[in-house]
Amino acid sequence: MTDLLSPGLHRAAGVADDASLVTAMLRVEVAWLRALAEVGAVDPEDAETVAVAAGDWQVDLAALGAAGEDTGNPVLPVVSGLREVVGQPLALLVHRGLTSQDVLDTALVLLSRDALARTRGDLLATAQGLAALADQHRASLMVGRTLTQHAVPITFGLKAAQWLSGVLDALERVDRALDQLPVQCGGAAGTLSLVAETTDPSRAAAAFAHELGLRWRGVPWHTNRAPVTAIGDALVATTGACGVLASDVALLARPEIGEVREGQVAGRGGSSTMPHKQNPVLAVLVRAASLQTPQLLAQLHLAAAQAVDERPDGAWHSEWPSLRRLLEVTVTATSQTAELVSLLEVDTAAMKSRVDAASEDLLAESGRATAAEDYLGAASVFVDAVLERLPSEGNGHA
Amino acid sequence: MTDLLSPGLHRAAGVADDASLVTAMLRVEVAWLRALAEVGAVDPEDAETVAVAAGDWQVDLAALGAAGEDTGNPVLPVVSGLREVVGQPLALLVHRGLTSQDVLDTALVLLSRDALARTRGDLLATAQGLAALADQHRASLMVGRTLTQHAVPITFGLKAAQWLSGVLDALERVDRALDQLPVQCGGAAGTLSLVAETTDPSRAAAAFAHELGLRWRGVPWHTNRAPVTAIGDALVATTGACGVLASDVALLARPEIGEVREGQVAGRGGSSTMPHKQNPVLAVLVRAASLQTPQLLAQLHLAAAQAVDERPDGAWHSEWPSLRRLLEVTVTATSQTAELVSLLEVDTAAMKSRVDAASEDLLAESGRATAAEDYLGAASVFVDAVLERLPSEGNGHA
Amino acid sequence: MTDLLSPGLHRAAGVADDASLVTAMLRVEVAWLRALAEVGAVDPEDAETVAVAAGDWQVDLAALGAAGEDTGNPVLPVVSGLREVVGQPLALLVHRGLTSQDVLDTALVLLSRDALARTRGDLLATAQGLAALADQHRASLMVGRTLTQHAVPITFGLKAAQWLSGVLDALERVDRALDQLPVQCGGAAGTLSLVAETTDPSRAAAAFAHELGLRWRGVPWHTNRAPVTAIGDALVATTGACGVLASDVALLARPEIGEVREGQVAGRGGSSTMPHKQNPVLAVLVRAASLQTPQLLAQLHLAAAQAVDERPDGAWHSEWPSLRRLLEVTVTATSQTAELVSLLEVDTAAMKSRVDAASEDLLAESGRATAAEDYLGAASVFVDAVLERLPSEGNGHA
Amino acid sequence: MTDLLSPGLHRAAGVADDASLVTAMLRVEVAWLRALAEVGAVDPEDAETVAVAAGDWQVDLAALGAAGEDTGNPVLPVVSGLREVVGQPLALLVHRGLTSQDVLDTALVLLSRDALARTRGDLLATAQGLAALADQHRASLMVGRTLTQHAVPITFGLKAAQWLSGVLDALERVDRALDQLPVQCGGAAGTLSLVAETTDPSRAAAAFAHELGLRWRGVPWHTNRAPVTAIGDALVATTGACGVLASDVALLARPEIGEVREGQVAGRGGSSTMPHKQNPVLAVLVRAASLQTPQLLAQLHLAAAQAVDERPDGAWHSEWPSLRRLLEVTVTATSQTAELVSLLEVDTAAMKSRVDAASEDLLAESGRATAAEDYLGAASVFVDAVLERLPSEGNGHA
Repeated sequence: MTDLLSPGLHRAAGVADDASLVTAMLRVEVAWLRALAEVGAVDPEDAETVAVAAGDWQVDLAALGAAGEDTGNPVLPVVSGLREVVGQPLALLVHRGLTSQDVLDTALVLLSRDALARTRGDLLATAQGLAALADQHRASLMVGRTLTQHAVPITFGLKAAQWLSGVLDALERVDRALDQLPVQCGGAAGTLSLVAETTDPSRAAAAFAHELGLRWRGVPWHTNRAPVTAIGDALVATTGACGVLASDVALLARPEIGEVREGQVAGRGGSSTMPHKQNPVLAVLVRAASLQTPQLLAQLHLAAAQAVDERPDGAWHSEWPSLRRLLEVTVTATSQTAELVSLLEVDTAAMKSRVDAASEDLLAESGRATAAEDYLGAASVFVDAVLERLPSEGNGHA
Repeated sequence: MTDLLSPGLHRAAGVADDASLVTAMLRVEVAWLRALAEVGAVDPEDAETVAVAAGDWQVDLAALGAAGEDTGNPVLPVVSGLREVVGQPLALLVHRGLTSQDVLDTALVLLSRDALARTRGDLLATAQGLAALADQHRASLMVGRTLTQHAVPITFGLKAAQWLSGVLDALERVDRALDQLPVQCGGAAGTLSLVAETTDPSRAAAAFAHELGLRWRGVPWHTNRAPVTAIGDALVATTGACGVLASDVALLARPEIGEVREGQVAGRGGSSTMPHKQNPVLAVLVRAASLQTPQLLAQLHLAAAQAVDERPDGAWHSEWPSLRRLLEVTVTATSQTAELVSLLEVDTAAMKSRVDAASEDLLAESGRATAAEDYLGAASVFVDAVLERLPSEGNGHA
Repeated sequence: MTDLLSPGLHRAAGVADDASLVTAMLRVEVAWLRALAEVGAVDPEDAETVAVAAGDWQVDLAALGAAGEDTGNPVLPVVSGLREVVGQPLALLVHRGLTSQDVLDTALVLLSRDALARTRGDLLATAQGLAALADQHRASLMVGRTLTQHAVPITFGLKAAQWLSGVLDALERVDRALDQLPVQCGGAAGTLSLVAETTDPSRAAAAFAHELGLRWRGVPWHTNRAPVTAIGDALVATTGACGVLASDVALLARPEIGEVREGQVAGRGGSSTMPHKQNPVLAVLVRAASLQTPQLLAQLHLAAAQAVDERPDGAWHSEWPSLRRLLEVTVTATSQTAELVSLLEVDTAAMKSRVDAASEDLLAESGRATAAEDYLGAASVFVDAVLERLPSEGNGHA
Repeated sequence: MTDLLSPGLHRAAGVADDASLVTAMLRVEVAWLRALAEVGAVDPEDAETVAVAAGDWQVDLAALGAAGEDTGNPVLPVVSGLREVVGQPLALLVHRGLTSQDVLDTALVLLSRDALARTRGDLLATAQGLAALADQHRASLMVGRTLTQHAVPITFGLKAAQWLSGVLDALERVDRALDQLPVQCGGAAGTLSLVAETTDPSRAAAAFAHELGLRWRGVPWHTNRAPVTAIGDALVATTGACGVLASDVALLARPEIGEVREGQVAGRGGSSTMPHKQNPVLAVLVRAASLQTPQLLAQLHLAAAQAVDERPDGAWHSEWPSLRRLLEVTVTATSQTAELVSLLEVDTAAMKSRVDAASEDLLAESGRATAAEDYLGAASVFVDAVLERLPSEGNGHA
């Protein structure tokens, strides 16, 4: 996968590309057979034979792509291919009782789980970095700015704590999304009828979920897309938290402000024509990501609202590329953000000299003669309040 | 408030119009003074004097509107007006230590709480109605449809249960949003510095939260808009769940299908030119709402991602009208949905005769001679699984 | 109309509020009768009697609002009311042969025409102001900035010319939209059948268009929403052009940059707590508007793509509030932008001293010893190229 | 390029994938050198030597992808690579005077031109097919439907003409976009300063435009994104017109309605589990596309509104993937639509029998005893009005 128009997207290699998707679909088909074996509806050896064949199959993605149009989704070509490689009579077992949506939804949930886990890791690293900055700079005076103008003094520690507060809120949503990821399992129209011919459908569905480490909601969700929008909510909350930080960095790294800088990395930030340039590339890219994800989430909700019949006529289809893109963009942006924070250079002297220069305005609210460091109110208390929320696993800053 | 282009929006009267907003802002200003009194920074009698004055003030909304442009938000005109009506020296107390964003954010949270509570009530009523339908129709055979075509048989009970499943998921998100609603309280740049001149800012903030029955997050959230996007997520999940139901009703009420009908209400559903017309008006309006809210949520997330500095330069401002509109549209759509469900007419005979006519196709998957009622798999089990999730307070269907 | 959450929206008073809408709908009903009179299908005196009654009618907006839900749109209540005030037998003439969509679409086109005309006027004023700035400052050196960092020297004249270039492109789109505004006229399902009972429908439609100064497309556009998305395109192009300018002003007015300032207006830009504050309020509000309109346009296109049947089941309904909001926001933002430009203060000394301080970087690309004013390339030529596009009516800067 | 989650996207192979993009970027770099040669600033032989080297270069896309993150866009890696393959001293000529944005914007315009041309071809084919249907079925009675319910009789010819009307409006926008496609050419900060060191920048820019068959706007448009949003407008208008048609087909192909069918193609429309299924796959996929593009256009406008400085800090970057996706989705959807129309099966008997069954309702408006074919008003006149708009090149239906 290359995507020259989304610089940095190689960080999300393997997250949701076609190869990963097919692997996940095959994993779902195999897990289903194992679940059927678990509840006695299939011979366990047969399930394992299919598993081996699925693992060995060299998939031709281009051929799948063209075939997928005829069926309207990529599942049937994968099923046909798998049936061919396992041969008769096992071919009859493959996909038995499932519908395309069971496989595709569950495969996308598996990809989402991995993407959320990677996102979580980078959010934690980001949180750790920000916690260190918040703690270290709790006395680093800087100008507070509202509506672009100078307000009252703050500390850079407080600013880092506010960024951290957003990251921790995103982390909570990611954790919640991870906790609730379900298998999809309903068969042709959500009744698991064909399954019921040979076994207890609910037990099979539960075994299926167990096999994949996912939840079984007790009922299919073909037309109730809450599990998908919950994933989307977590991802957009994540890019949003990263976007605030990145947008602030882009502002504070302006040469006229110069209070932070993206740490230099060899070869990064250069211009195609101006040798002196040192662009805050990661901040710009993360910011760009945060401008894109809200529309992707809107797409998921729009699809959710139109999930008619027992499987809809286009809404479901409009969901897939948006979810994939959300996964890739978020994994990338969070990774970039973690790196951005780890490299961030803070110029406390520049901050301090600006506070000194602007002190008259900054202290106008107080209405009395004072020093900026004596007008910080609860800044340090707020830093502590945010640091306390840091999960113990992210708490390496002490 | 009239809004002829959002038919039914009178159902949301008082939810988030300008008069309600000003009332909420005044309530916030008064609560803040009471909180300061609680922590000993203000004389309790002074706080109550201001409270009385605020209650008596006849606000001129049109004048506030024009003045609000000069300050970029409606808070300062309200503060100025309140200061004028309380007169000196109490005027000095009003808004002491707060910033505009503290007041506006908290006021919008108060409006959101009321809107969410109303939404919750109508979601519960909807859930109750759907639970009754699911239970009553667990044996009512109907055609399952996927990608517009006939699939395998289902029951109308299962369809109602699937609608219910979406409503219950929305209810969970609404409950979660209600549980987390915070006060905003940070002063000029999020340090509560002016408050700290006379009292412990965190204690004051906590007292403020207690006064309004909201949470204090331990830190301001001027630039961390997670509380706002969480409200938005709950609202859009709600209209999405309602939208699925409404879109299904609109489809099933087509004369060629005719399996459900919006119950007749005198004067409703008529056409301006065709006397025979009986349009599924509520379904259409709820569906229209569900098509609008995803973009409003995108707007909230877009604002969240750009919350730079200690208060941003436009992003915050773009959030207000979107949140208001989300509140009004959701309250309206949920109320309409509750009514739609309560009046829904189900034509089980039409359902049954379609199943009979299409039985060959419907049973093709099973590959054996059977009756449709014998190919329902886990339909009834799934109905039970959803009914079990019904909160006891919504459980009036038994 | 007050809208405290959209500061400045009083500038759009009368553009698209309910009263204006009802007036427009009545104007449409009257124009239709006059058109029928024109083609001999109605007695001209009857048409004028209805016109007088419509003009005299004191409409109760609140009552219309509630009634509009039952019919799903506000037209039938207006028609019923008008029929009542004209009494029998004239009541039978009112709305004869039309459908609700004919009236509402045409009324919204009328409101759009006025809003576009106001927008056009303010775009022209903005263009005139920018042209003057571009001309006056063609030698005012300033730092060019890309990706937040210093690039090569430019002039403020070039920057103003670039803003102007966007405004002129928007103006072209507004003009194109104004040229193409059509009447809607199709009757119950787009065949004008009832009209055809008594007269030539196409002649009636053409007379209707002539009566209102609009185009007749030769065919109804109930389900082809190109006329609506074309209006939307012009409006969003307008706020986009204003948004670039406003965002630039907000950046350049930061105290650390200080190269432009929003001109002071008594009472504007103040803070609720900080006496020294001078916020760039207009820039912030215009910027906020430009962040909101893209989602509104998405809504129009989304409605357009789902305009099924001969009138759709919700898509059309989702269009109305988005179009109204687009009209109001754009009229407001363009008016604010015109004022912003007229008051803009340019600090050429600050610009020059920054160029001097940064000259080493700014001239790095050139690779030779030179002065910034000798490295401006085609800056002045580009200023001329843009100024040449200025419509003669906007050309008052010479 | 495979994209299993966008079934049918192989139809857009080569439209905007990374390989095509790099080819376009190289074409831009070569065209620029030829333009410089044209105006005497470069030895024409040198330009041709670079052209040959660029043509021979075997680009490693994966390496470019990773390198693109460091520079924030894919241009500098391409330039570096090209410089390497041409060697010194020619390397100094490559990209001389340009900035990354000149190359990327122009390359995306080239891709857009090809995509618009392909879209245009398929729109014409669609128009031709619809014109034939409109003409052929001008007397084919069918039920008119509004708000899901039966209204008055129409003809299928009129319905086809209405679809055609949308397609022709889209075609106009595509033609307008094609007419205005510009080169981007401004150098580091929009002054073409480095170019001016050796030649007349405007002449060079005009020669550059001529070389590529594009327009030179007389001024760069780095921060005026009107050319990009105009492309977007044409593309979304296109998918919208296709979406209406597809959504109507999906509805009318429901088994309960059965008035049209997607023509059968071997292997298409099958289900993974139900042997009888014949899903309207193309209609579903086109409909899904039409639900996605509005948000992509919103992204372009959002980027346009935030194009600050002389090149912005993320907004521009957020534009690229949205434009690419719009190009690919539109090319695919238009191709699918052309095929859908060419294969469409119309069941006039089913239409007629429904009209007969519903005649009482259908004729209620007329208020008199009549036959449906006598209550068609201007249906045929409207068909003619639309057919007259058909461009002569698309007029193969006669």
